[in-house]
Amino acid sequence: MIRIAVIGAGYWGPNLIRNFTRCPHTQLVAVCDNNPDRLAKVLAGYPGVAAVDNVETLLERNDVDAVAVATPVGTHAKIGIAALRAGKHVLVEKPLAPSVREAGELVRTAREVGRILMVDHTFIYSGPVRKIKEIVDSDELGDLYYVDSVRINLGLFQHDVNVVWDLAPHDLSIMDYLIGRLPKSLSAFGTCHTDREGMIEDVAYLNLDFGDGLLASFHVNWLSPVKIRHFILGGSRKSLIYNDLDNAEKIKVYDRGITVSQDAEARRKMLISYRIGDVWSPQVDQSEPLQGMVSHFAECIRDGKQPLTDGESGLRVVRILEAAQRSIKAQGGRITL
Amino acid sequence: MIRIAVIGAGYWGPNLIRNFTRCPHTQLVAVCDNNPDRLAKVLAGYPGVAAVDNVETLLERNDVDAVAVATPVGTHAKIGIAALRAGKHVLVEKPLAPSVREAGELVRTAREVGRILMVDHTFIYSGPVRKIKEIVDSDELGDLYYVDSVRINLGLFQHDVNVVWDLAPHDLSIMDYLIGRLPKSLSAFGTCHTDREGMIEDVAYLNLDFGDGLLASFHVNWLSPVKIRHFILGGSRKSLIYNDLDNAEKIKVYDRGITVSQDAEARRKMLISYRIGDVWSPQVDQSEPLQGMVSHFAECIRDGKQPLTDGESGLRVVRILEAAQRSIKAQGGRITL
Amino acid sequence: MIRIAVIGAGYWGPNLIRNFTRCPHTQLVAVCDNNPDRLAKVLAGYPGVAAVDNVETLLERNDVDAVAVATPVGTHAKIGIAALRAGKHVLVEKPLAPSVREAGELVRTAREVGRILMVDHTFIYSGPVRKIKEIVDSDELGDLYYVDSVRINLGLFQHDVNVVWDLAPHDLSIMDYLIGRLPKSLSAFGTCHTDREGMIEDVAYLNLDFGDGLLASFHVNWLSPVKIRHFILGGSRKSLIYNDLDNAEKIKVYDRGITVSQDAEARRKMLISYRIGDVWSPQVDQSEPLQGMVSHFAECIRDGKQPLTDGESGLRVVRILEAAQRSIKAQGGRITL
Amino acid sequence: MIRIAVIGAGYWGPNLIRNFTRCPHTQLVAVCDNNPDRLAKVLAGYPGVAAVDNVETLLERNDVDAVAVATPVGTHAKIGIAALRAGKHVLVEKPLAPSVREAGELVRTAREVGRILMVDHTFIYSGPVRKIKEIVDSDELGDLYYVDSVRINLGLFQHDVNVVWDLAPHDLSIMDYLIGRLPKSLSAFGTCHTDREGMIEDVAYLNLDFGDGLLASFHVNWLSPVKIRHFILGGSRKSLIYNDLDNAEKIKVYDRGITVSQDAEARRKMLISYRIGDVWSPQVDQSEPLQGMVSHFAECIRDGKQPLTDGESGLRVVRILEAAQRSIKAQGGRITL
Repeated sequence: MIRIAVIGAGYWGPNLIRNFTRCPHTQLVAVCDNNPDRLAKVLAGYPGVAAVDNVETLLERNDVDAVAVATPVGTHAKIGIAALRAGKHVLVEKPLAPSVREAGELVRTAREVGRILMVDHTFIYSGPVRKIKEIVDSDELGDLYYVDSVRINLGLFQHDVNVVWDLAPHDLSIMDYLIGRLPKSLSAFGTCHTDREGMIEDVAYLNLDFGDGLLASFHVNWLSPVKIRHFILGGSRKSLIYNDLDNAEKIKVYDRGITVSQDAEARRKMLISYRIGDVWSPQVDQSEPLQGMVSHFAECIRDGKQPLTDGESGLRVVRILEAAQRSIKAQGGRITL
Repeated sequence: MIRIAVIGAGYWGPNLIRNFTRCPHTQLVAVCDNNPDRLAKVLAGYPGVAAVDNVETLLERNDVDAVAVATPVGTHAKIGIAALRAGKHVLVEKPLAPSVREAGELVRTAREVGRILMVDHTFIYSGPVRKIKEIVDSDELGDLYYVDSVRINLGLFQHDVNVVWDLAPHDLSIMDYLIGRLPKSLSAFGTCHTDREGMIEDVAYLNLDFGDGLLASFHVNWLSPVKIRHFILGGSRKSLIYNDLDNAEKIKVYDRGITVSQDAEARRKMLISYRIGDVWSPQVDQSEPLQGMVSHFAECIRDGKQPLTDGESGLRVVRILEAAQRSIKAQGGRITL
Repeated sequence: MIRIAVIGAGYWGPNLIRNFTRCPHTQLVAVCDNNPDRLAKVLAGYPGVAAVDNVETLLERNDVDAVAVATPVGTHAKIGIAALRAGKHVLVEKPLAPSVREAGELVRTAREVGRILMVDHTFIYSGPVRKIKEIVDSDELGDLYYVDSVRINLGLFQHDVNVVWDLAPHDLSIMDYLIGRLPKSLSAFGTCHTDREGMIEDVAYLNLDFGDGLLASFHVNWLSPVKIRHFILGGSRKSLIYNDLDNAEKIKVYDRGITVSQDAEARRKMLISYRIGDVWSPQVDQSEPLQGMVSHFAECIRDGKQPLTDGESGLRVVRILEAAQRSIKAQGGRITL
Repeated sequence: MIRIAVIGAGYWGPNLIRNFTRCPHTQLVAVCDNNPDRLAKVLAGYPGVAAVDNVETLLERNDVDAVAVATPVGTHAKIGIAALRAGKHVLVEKPLAPSVREAGELVRTAREVGRILMVDHTFIYSGPVRKIKEIVDSDELGDLYYVDSVRINLGLFQHDVNVVWDLAPHDLSIMDYLIGRLPKSLSAFGTCHTDREGMIEDVAYLNLDFGDGLLASFHVNWLSPVKIRHFILGGSRKSLIYNDLDNAEKIKVYDRGITVSQDAEARRKMLISYRIGDVWSPQVDQSEPLQGMVSHFAECIRDGKQPLTDGESGLRVVRILEAAQRSIKAQGGRITL
């Protein structure tokens, strides 16, 4: 049984608290927040859990094996590093840190102290994304030609981060999980409409170039009139669409490849024969991703395993986010990674 | 009655022939194509129409008031200019020309000879786009914040042009019609998968920056497993979605604006109150756009009016296409317009 | 503050418990169930609430003003009547009772003892149905021509009731709320596939005839491969569709009436001109219907008001259910109501 | 080459004319209509085809092998029988005849004179329906439990027939093709709203009982605000949905069967385990059904084959239509077939 403390009882903390409580491999021993009212309210239904009002006190506790950090992103690195140095395993909310420098420090510290560092890229633990990974790894799609992701919503504005840091980590972490390597370069575009100081973009586009014909595009948007979650993986053999809002058929695999004829004459004329084939929508596991995530964290601690979403993957996502941010400020200037 | 000749009896020519025949203001007198079999086949159902096998002969005819040029894009300028100099009014298929230089020559020649030059941006004559124009002009949407267009399909590959020149003219001409000004700069990204020489992009993204907070993004794609035609206009008051594949509700107007509070404290906190309101899907005219287009051409000739889709609008679209092409070759390098 | 006891801690009971606890006008004082394990489990999160293991003991309590009966339908009347006679106000889960006789006894008893009897037709307290009621009452639709309801699912089978008693009460109660009168007659059809004794229908159709041109049809089905909740109200002026699974646009009003020409010649030829107009999707309140329902119950008790879903409406629904059952057994034989 | 004459140049005739002209196995020699203007207009594009103004003259022609009857349904039998007696093969528009008596005479006459009698149940020649037939015949669905068909539209009113005779032949012919036997009995319900004499139903429901647990339901409607074409085949192993308006995925097969446990105790409790599995949308042929239909007609004449949609199948559909009509007039009274 891994003994857990959750740090931060704001927006996401209660979800972690609920899931650590339910998980058979973890025991929630403490929750830490510097706002006593919020802390009391969150702990109302959890009689045996300690309320702690500062991180230092929490990290001194011997009955805590691991902490989950659900504080504002600006504090992730400081708290995470302190926890690691206090001998705790650490789970950090996405994004891992607000800069490559801080994310790198987290990763290095975890390596030094030999503790698990995991980032909560929740989608990686969802049924649909695990099924897509299976399909990609089986080479059913063939070579990947493009990734096109749209995640737009008239949703909750953040005050501290822009739409890129808020929404793109989801899709970038999915892409990282599926493809497992960094793009060569990127350009990003964004505008601000609701923030008068023009600091917080609410619409943005990221174009990632992998240098080998693979292009990945991400549209993130807080100002859309409708909610869209649409993710296309275009392959040389088949293509796949993941629509997270389609409850009945979240994943569809399209047997509609392209066959380029091989002989010279045909190639010259670029004659292309289409195969338009069947569509297949596989069954996907519908259990709560967050439950799978906390179980995986506990399992990695127990068995000394590398998490699927380890610090390195968190760092790769932050690398892209930071580069995107720089590119937006340079009006789409190309950033090499 | 305007007497018309159609030049080019390939892919699009027969549609023009059919529509000029049906139009009460035009009389189709001749069709010109250098392929005699194709010409004979196309004219089978049109007994009184002359078959002409070369452009020079056609342009010498006195019974032709205007020509419609539906030849490959590389020949548009040469044929169009010759026709204008022969005193004919000219309708050119989209895109107007393969370069800004040639498009500019067309526009200048038309001005010199005092003849109508019109480009067949067909969508501008469709019920949905005319309704959207009405809505935008009424200021119902407020300030425009972003345009997001997706036009993707596993469709017919072109051998002579890439996906940008093939598909983007539709959406760029719609945007030009609605907004009526050029972006300040753009960046574009594309890749080739099916063309071994790497010259003909099959997936591309365009990001246009109008310099005043308005961003326009275009995704064009020949390799998609599904057909999507989705066009969002995000506004400060309302937003609009035009889904050309939704037969029942092509246009939806969303009364879901954003109100940024004006007082200082609130602004600092960026408190934003949402209005989530009704959705309204107006009735749109379903008559064939091409019929409206040929009528408009006849009417402009008869009354000496400036066409909605005049040479200048064709030139503006070509400016963006050419810049996009250069940007793609420069791996997304920013092009100022 | 109305003091409430919930009887029955099975499938639906916990939802009532949660909502009575949250409601500012009610206080949950006791929960009664004859299964002690279930009772203990349900009450875990509610420290101050009494656990009672039999109905008699519960009804003797003076600190209970009202009870909510969430037991199997066969026990509704017995428990409800006992509670009314003990001076309690009574809320009964749908359907009110398993027969017209027992439902009638409940209604009569409530009248005799002067206590509130309410049936939990939850949908009546939902945002969409309240909005539809508003639209119908405003006469926007004109005369009602037909009601067509489809509620099908590969869902949870019931062991004690068939698909008609399980699913149809939802739609029949909505229809009753909107129209407010009983049909003149009905015919119903059903078959059993999964129950070897052939007693429990899993697919059924109800056809209700109001005798004045209004026809109402209900398709209920436990064996469908997909979930559908589709309710059409066809009117002389406009029509309305309520699709409970469309999260973005649950209600759409179609301005597509039919105008029958009035002059004799035209009438003879039955020339009909269509108006095909706009579609309007009004905003609907998204608060939890069950919360509205329990508030309404408390308010009716406090103010001595007649509930929207009073015993009479519950009885009307049971009348239709019982008649449908008889008609199915008579292979669709017509039952007059 | 089969020499064809089309009788009736109204609504459907031109479609037949176009398809017989295009078919490589047929030659259109004459078109017959008693309205000379309509005839002239229809034949404008077909120079070599004879215009005939009455059926008698037409049937005397020796250069006609077969006729297609596209006249109002009331004349089908008279014209069809005359044509058969004149030695012509006969194709009749759906429905075959306005009564079982007349349809039966057509069938008997064809048998007597040894000529092909075929009814134009066009859907049977469509890609989707042929694919569904293949799936049903392969026993992939298992035993059929129910058929549920919805064909509703705010469409073109007919003046001579009601909505049942207008729309239901499509779905009844599909059901007949898939199942190949008549129901044991049926009940039908309908109402009139737009016809003041109350003779022409515009909304109707048919419930067909096959007597072995299979129920088939048909909803046909001229007054719907939206167009729906939705056909469910519920099976013991799998289920299938045919949505004719879904251009991308017209057919979906759902691997979501029901397994009823076999042991006594389990049966008593009716414990049912669900299998919720994959969805598969097979590719379907998209060629024009009418082209397949006319080819099949020519082929049956040439080879002396029984048509898929022979007179008998046309008669079975008319049996159901006539019984439905009687049941509607008897307010849903059960009619045994």
